[in-house]
Amino acid sequence: MKSKFIVIEGLEGAGKTTAIDNVAKMLKHRGIKDTVFTREPGGTLLAENLRVLLKRNLEHEKITDKAELLMMYAARVQLVEIVIKPALARGNWVLGDRHDLSSQAYQGGGRCIDSKLIQSLRDTVLGNFKPAITLYLDVPPEIGLERACSRGSLDRIEKESLKFFERVRQRYIELAKTDQSIITIDATQTLPQVTNNIYLILQSWFDRQEKTNEMVSMAQCALSTDS
Amino acid sequence: MKSKFIVIEGLEGAGKTTAIDNVAKMLKHRGIKDTVFTREPGGTLLAENLRVLLKRNLEHEKITDKAELLMMYAARVQLVEIVIKPALARGNWVLGDRHDLSSQAYQGGGRCIDSKLIQSLRDTVLGNFKPAITLYLDVPPEIGLERACSRGSLDRIEKESLKFFERVRQRYIELAKTDQSIITIDATQTLPQVTNNIYLILQSWFDRQEKTNEMVSMAQCALSTDS
Ligand SMILES: Nc1ncnc2c1ncn2[C@@H]1O[C@H](COP(=O)(O)OP(=O)(O)OP(=O)(O)O)[C@@H](O)[C@H]1O
Ligand SMILES: Nc1ncnc2c1ncn2[C@@H]1O[C@H](COP(=O)(O)OP(=O)(O)OP(=O)(O)O)[C@@H](O)[C@H]1O
Ligand SMILES: [Mg+2]
Ligand SMILES: [Mg+2]
Repeated sequence: MKSKFIVIEGLEGAGKTTAIDNVAKMLKHRGIKDTVFTREPGGTLLAENLRVLLKRNLEHEKITDKAELLMMYAARVQLVEIVIKPALARGNWVLGDRHDLSSQAYQGGGRCIDSKLIQSLRDTVLGNFKPAITLYLDVPPEIGLERACSRGSLDRIEKESLKFFERVRQRYIELAKTDQSIITIDATQTLPQVTNNIYLILQSWFDRQEKTNEMVSMAQCALSTDS
Repeated sequence: MKSKFIVIEGLEGAGKTTAIDNVAKMLKHRGIKDTVFTREPGGTLLAENLRVLLKRNLEHEKITDKAELLMMYAARVQLVEIVIKPALARGNWVLGDRHDLSSQAYQGGGRCIDSKLIQSLRDTVLGNFKPAITLYLDVPPEIGLERACSRGSLDRIEKESLKFFERVRQRYIELAKTDQSIITIDATQTLPQVTNNIYLILQSWFDRQEKTNEMVSMAQCALSTDS
């Protein structure tokens, strides 16, 4: 098994936090204990401070697209180095509410920053670190924002236009097509349907992981008897 | 004249803020009004917030080198886009207390981050934007820190080891050798001597700028009479 890092992605109100709760239950049911939960941007003292700066509505100053991108990656590298990598090294599972794909979709698709630039920043900052599997909850922005709106006042990013979120969604969809570790889930379905989808996807993912592990240990066993 | 952006660089306590005051007087004496002053990291609402996060002594969390680097560049791009470029576009002079060279010296030399990585981040974020002239106040860290210490408690960066600041100084010295727009000033001299040095350097720099300008306008004149 490559890594125990599972990420949930999607637009505001897609149902990420709800999905995290359900995935956590599935992990518990499999006997997995001490799962570490993260959210991005955030998850460390510094990163949570950056989250506040990123979400705050500044009245007299526009946060430039590049400053936003760099702050996202500053928060991410801090979280990865201080929390995620140490947890994985201890053998824990990590369940992430957003991760790198959000920057590709929001700063790349939404803000129209060149995707090669983001990719090279990503490579520089994170190297080849990536989640084992990403569940992308796909939902049209109108539906997601309606679900999210009921929670109260909108932050700086949530206040973006529908056009912005449509670009974000398109980028999510494109990226999911090119990376087989990203699984798209139709999040316009009812909550029980979405939960069931997630359950089935993770169930078969775990089965495949276990089969791979078995084959790896059988091969190792054969190698050690050979020598 | 390429740009009206003058930067003062050097270790803590080298005499940067004092030098800025003196350069400001020289500019005023030349009839230059409305000079814009900047300091880094800082100089905008967002960048000053990042400055606080960068300087604060966190008890239970180490700021990773990469997060520090990215936050420095986030603050810098915000300052350049929101304050420096608009000021230059209006025709104002800008006087900077630190700029990009600090990241090359502190994050590159001090933190030992690969200089090619910083260079590529710089190119990505700032393109070919750079100061017209940088005055580097060279001082051994012991002397600079002694001058700075008298100001009160030390921030997170000032608390670094002497070895760290020696690496920073070496990188400043190396970089000054390879870039002729960086002028090194021996800041171990008495304050009147340093001030006089700065005066003479800027005087001859202004003279050269004016000669270049004259030649450019003579050439333009000749071209327009030709046609
Ligand atoms: N499939 C669904 N159908 C209807 N409502 C849903 C569905 N999934 C989640 N919700 C509801 O929508 C609201 C937003 O869900 P949730 O907080 O999980 O979204 P989120 O993706 O975490 O949002 P944010 O990005 O703002 O954190 C909640 O009230 C949740 O109960
Ligand atoms: N050449 C000098 N000789 C002796 N003292 C000096 C000299 N230059 C500056 N000082 C004094 O050293 C102290 C620090 O100077 P200053 O604040 O200008 O340094 P700085 O480079 O801006 O420091 P920092 O990086 O901490 O902002 C001040 O008290 C200043 O008067
Ligand atoms: Mg949520
Ligand atoms: Mg100063």
